[in-house]
Order: sequence, then structure tokens, then C-alpha cells
Amino acid sequence: MRMTSAGARGRRTLAILASIVVLGLALTTGGAIGQAPPQPVADALPSWNEGSAKRAIIDFIRTTTDPASPGFVPPQDRVATFDQDGTLWTEHPLYTQVLYAFARLHLLTEAKPELRQREPFRTVLSGDRDAIAKLSLHDLEKVLAVTLTGMSTETFRTEVAEWLAHARDPRWKRPYTELTYVPMQEVLAYFRANGFRTYIVTGGGQDFVRVYAQAVYGIPPEQVVGTAGATSYTYDANGKPVLIKEPKLLLNDDQAGKPEGIHFMIGRRPQASFGNSTGDRQMLEYARAGDGPRLAVLVLHDDASREYAYGPAEGLPDTHVGTFTAQLHDEAIRQGWTVISMKTDWKRIFAFDP
Amino acid sequence: MRMTSAGARGRRTLAILASIVVLGLALTTGGAIGQAPPQPVADALPSWNEGSAKRAIIDFIRTTTDPASPGFVPPQDRVATFDQDGTLWTEHPLYTQVLYAFARLHLLTEAKPELRQREPFRTVLSGDRDAIAKLSLHDLEKVLAVTLTGMSTETFRTEVAEWLAHARDPRWKRPYTELTYVPMQEVLAYFRANGFRTYIVTGGGQDFVRVYAQAVYGIPPEQVVGTAGATSYTYDANGKPVLIKEPKLLLNDDQAGKPEGIHFMIGRRPQASFGNSTGDRQMLEYARAGDGPRLAVLVLHDDASREYAYGPAEGLPDTHVGTFTAQLHDEAIRQGWTVISMKTDWKRIFAFDP
Repeated sequence: MRMTSAGARGRRTLAILASIVVLGLALTTGGAIGQAPPQPVADALPSWNEGSAKRAIIDFIRTTTDPASPGFVPPQDRVATFDQDGTLWTEHPLYTQVLYAFARLHLLTEAKPELRQREPFRTVLSGDRDAIAKLSLHDLEKVLAVTLTGMSTETFRTEVAEWLAHARDPRWKRPYTELTYVPMQEVLAYFRANGFRTYIVTGGGQDFVRVYAQAVYGIPPEQVVGTAGATSYTYDANGKPVLIKEPKLLLNDDQAGKPEGIHFMIGRRPQASFGNSTGDRQMLEYARAGDGPRLAVLVLHDDASREYAYGPAEGLPDTHVGTFTAQLHDEAIRQGWTVISMKTDWKRIFAFDP
Repeated sequence: MRMTSAGARGRRTLAILASIVVLGLALTTGGAIGQAPPQPVADALPSWNEGSAKRAIIDFIRTTTDPASPGFVPPQDRVATFDQDGTLWTEHPLYTQVLYAFARLHLLTEAKPELRQREPFRTVLSGDRDAIAKLSLHDLEKVLAVTLTGMSTETFRTEVAEWLAHARDPRWKRPYTELTYVPMQEVLAYFRANGFRTYIVTGGGQDFVRVYAQAVYGIPPEQVVGTAGATSYTYDANGKPVLIKEPKLLLNDDQAGKPEGIHFMIGRRPQASFGNSTGDRQMLEYARAGDGPRLAVLVLHDDASREYAYGPAEGLPDTHVGTFTAQLHDEAIRQGWTVISMKTDWKRIFAFDP
């Protein structure tokens, strides 16, 4: 009974979250999201400035969907994969999931006060931004393991949905789910309107992203591939079957893990792939290596005033976020990948931009 | 280059295999497979005799798809999962995948003659059916690891497709891909015509089943959940990225591994689930434990003349196939699961039946 009512509450929270986010996007983007019929090419990407990036995307769709084109891809085979953090929404100053883990850690210490004296928990709880920025990836993984496992998948979903409904990004004072890039939402809708199945392929937690992917991106749970831990099938106090999240890594969906995860979860090679960091390099390379027309795209964060500038552009140093190194930038140029400049290619970034 | 031409050959072989199988089924089942519009209820399951099993299936579809029903499920949430071996096609006397592994072992010993003297390979190569029947599951796993890993995913796909095109079942002298149950093909088509996404959730190898699932069942690769090994992303001699199949288990998609695999790969609880053995028990239990109308179905092999009889029915002993134990049969009755008698519920079993 406990599980059932928690599940119902989760669904209610989710439904409210969904309506807010979908309504918000529909009002501000002119309804670009959803099951719209194919749009005239001139209208498909209204938030994009004319340029090589916009042209590469439109040319790819034209070549793969025109039955007269030698690069035509049958509708049932059309797959496009998108990294999430830094590609579809903001990843600075820290991944949303890490912020969620930090919030859970505060709650957790009420039941387990001994954590307060142990590293790396002590540093996280201190709130000292400089010290937190110096934590290693291994330290962060310890925090994730302690905070995001041990509960049922349904409890996890409910808790994430409740946090997302109330948490606010400190810079924009808005829910994290509003920090998605309107131009990329247009790309998702444009690909779907042209028969592509759009997948998120993220280094972030699969269960975490699945909580909001449908409401925020129109992407259902089965089209979210992410870093995933094992679950164990067991029974709650009422004999009802539950899946408990275990601190055991099944899929590390980053770098080479991305094409490996794509094979495991999708079983097809995508024709198009979008990313923004070295964590996406192998996914883009894998997508490009297939026959026929291929599209590999990197989002370059070079707009410090409207979002952030980091990587090969001047600006914030990289800390825990995937790195868009100068080397990756060189490779993109050498391989003929498309690089999106947020500053020059995008008319606006967020739905709430003036 | 080698990989490219092998890939092209594989696709050609697959295309030929696909046309033969699809054409064969379309000719013999009256085109029950495919994107047909919803059919009148009376025609949806023509190979089924009237009875409680057929009624339970039709009632479930009616309740979940009628917008006026309190059990209505929105189309985007409709998911049904199907075990393969013994549920959608014949699993006796051995799983098709094990037969494939045995065939590969013979080829493999040409390159590695030392395997001929080592167990369990020596027993398999002897062809002694009684001795083979006594091999443990662990022995069989050794054979699978040696024969089904070490090559690229594309080479694996090509080799499986070529074997399937030529191998014949000794009893019916037909390709294994023809040994699917027409009544279950009708159920798959009926569910899809009513907006359900149909998934295979198999203890068999995910990569193996994906080779033919589209052609044989109309189920695309991303809707096949199966036992899966890791792959490693690397480069061939020409610098082309490839995924190499590794002898490291990622997902043991059997028993409790089935609901765990469903959560991992689909992220939704199915409303309906079909199986035939103890390996499917937890999947059926998990499907049943959700809210609203639920359907859990077991196929009972009780027709020795048209197919096989084993499990609680008299007939062949269980060897390496999942077991439909008397205990499972009791549980099905107690839980109100539907049990299909192949003998009395199905008018015909195979498309080639007279």
C-alpha cells in the first residue's frame, strides 16, 4: 500500500510538472514541440540564424528523407541521438543530477549523522563552492552512490519529481527543466516530424533523466539511454514486487560507453548525433562511420552573456563537466563535423529570453 | 574495407531472409502481420478456438483501449512483453541459439583444433545427443562464450543471418524462423493494431534474436530485450570503429533478470506479459502488480503430435529448456494467470500446418 500511494503521488507530481513544462514551452516557442506535421523548411528552425550549422542540419534531413535521394533512409531505420547535459540544456556550474545528489545528502544526514564527519560528504555539506569544485570525479561518484541508491525505482522517481518541481537555478531563479535550449528543442521536433526516433544518450543517470524526458523533450523513457546501475527484484513489506536501486554500475554511458550503450539499448547505428564534449566524441565518430549521409554536431559554449563560455572559448574553467577541448575542436574541423556557435548560430537560447 | 563489404553482404543476406520470411507468413496467415488497421474482434485471432484464453486476451484489449473504460491506458503507455523460446516459437529439443553455437564450434575447431580434446567442447562435437543432453547450463555457457564472442557485432550479425538462411530443423525440415506459432503472431499483430508496443524479453541472446526479430515478428532491434554481453569500442585495421563482442555478461535476462531488464531497457512496467516457464515467473508477476487491468499468460506445451508436450503435461523431459513446473502451474491458477493449452486453444500451430 505504501508503494502504491507513493507511486500515485509520483504520477500526480509528474503530471503537474509535465503540464507546467509543456505549457510553458508551447506558449513561448509557438508550439514547436509535439506531433506537428512536417513543416516548410523555412519555418523548421526559427530560432536559428542562417549559417553553416543550420544549413548542415536542413541538408541532412532533406537528403535522408527525400525518396529520390541516393541517401534516402527508410523511416523505420531513422535514429538520431542527443547528449543531454550541455547539448540540450545547461550543465554549468554543475550537472543538475549532482545538485540533486547534494540536496539528498542534506536530507540523508538526518538519518545518518555520521556522514557529516566523513569525506567527501563533509566538503559537500559545507557548501564551500571552491572546495566542492576541487572534488574528484571519484568523490562525486561516492556521493551519487550514497544518495541515489537503496530505494525502490518508484520512490526514486517520486523524490526526483518533487525536487525538480521546487528546485531553482541560482542564476535564472527558474526550475532546471526550463534551462533547455529552444534551438535544440526545434531540432528534436524537426527530426521527429521527419520520421526520426530521437534518443537521449547521456552520461547522466538513466533513471534520473527518464523522470522528466517526456515532459521536457517529448522523449519517452525507453528512448533514454544513460549511465545505469543495477536494480534487484524483491518484495516490499506487503509482498508487492519492487525494484531496488543498487550501487553497482551496469552501463557507464560516457565516451566509448556511448556507442556501446547505443548498441546495447537501441541495436542500430544512428545516422545523426549531437554532443558537446569529449564524452561524446566516440558517439559522433560511430554515427559518422556508417554508410550514406551522416551528421555529427558539437555545441560550442561561447556565449558568456546569454549562457556560459567554456572549453576552447574563453570563460569559465572546466571543472566537473565534460570538456570541449581544443583538441576536440580540431578533430571536429578535420572530420568535417558541424560546430554550433551558441553565440552566432542561435537567435535566442532559452524560452524565457527576452 | 573488410568490415564494409562484410556489412553489405550481411544486409543483403538479411534482406533476402526478410523477404522470404515475410512473404511466407503473409501468404500463409492471410497477412495478419504488419501495420493493418484495428480489426473487428471476431477476426483478430482466427487461429484460436473459443475459450477462456482467447476471451481473456480480447477482454484485456477491450478494457485497456476503450476510452470509456475505467481501465483505459493512454496509447503512449501501452507496453506488452513476450518471452521468445517456447512462447513465440519452438524451443525443443534445444534452443535455436544453442544449435547455432554448436554449428559455430565445428567451424571454430578448424582454426583451434585444441578445442576438440577439451570438455565440454568434445562432447558437443561428438554429436552424441544423450551426452549433450546431460551437459550442465554452465557447460553450455562455456560453449556460448567461445563461439559467440570475439568478433565484431556486424560480423556476428552476418554469420547468424547466413546460418539461419541455411539451417533446417530436423523434425520439420524447415528453417527455424518458420517454427513460430501462428496464434501468437496473431496476438502480436492484435496488440500492435491496438496501439501496444510489443517487446521480446528473452533469456536468449539479445544480439542473436535481433538478427531476425523484425523479419519474423515485426519487432525492431530496439524492442528486443535479451541476455546481453558487453561490447568494446575499438578500431579495425582500416581505422573504422567497430564494437567487439566480449565474454562478459551485462544482463542475465532470465527470472528476476527479466523485470530488471525491462526496467533497464524500457523503463515502464508492461500491462501484459506472455511466457511459458519458470524463467518468466517474475516478469508475469511484475506486470500483474501494476494498477489497472493486467494480463499474465503462460503457454502450456501439451501437444505432442503437433509440437511437443513437456512440463506439467506428459511427454519429453525438460533438459536445457526453461521449465513449466507443476508448481508454476499451481501458481498460475492461484494468481488468476491465463494458461494457454496449445492442444485445445489453438486451431493450428505453424503456418505450414495442413
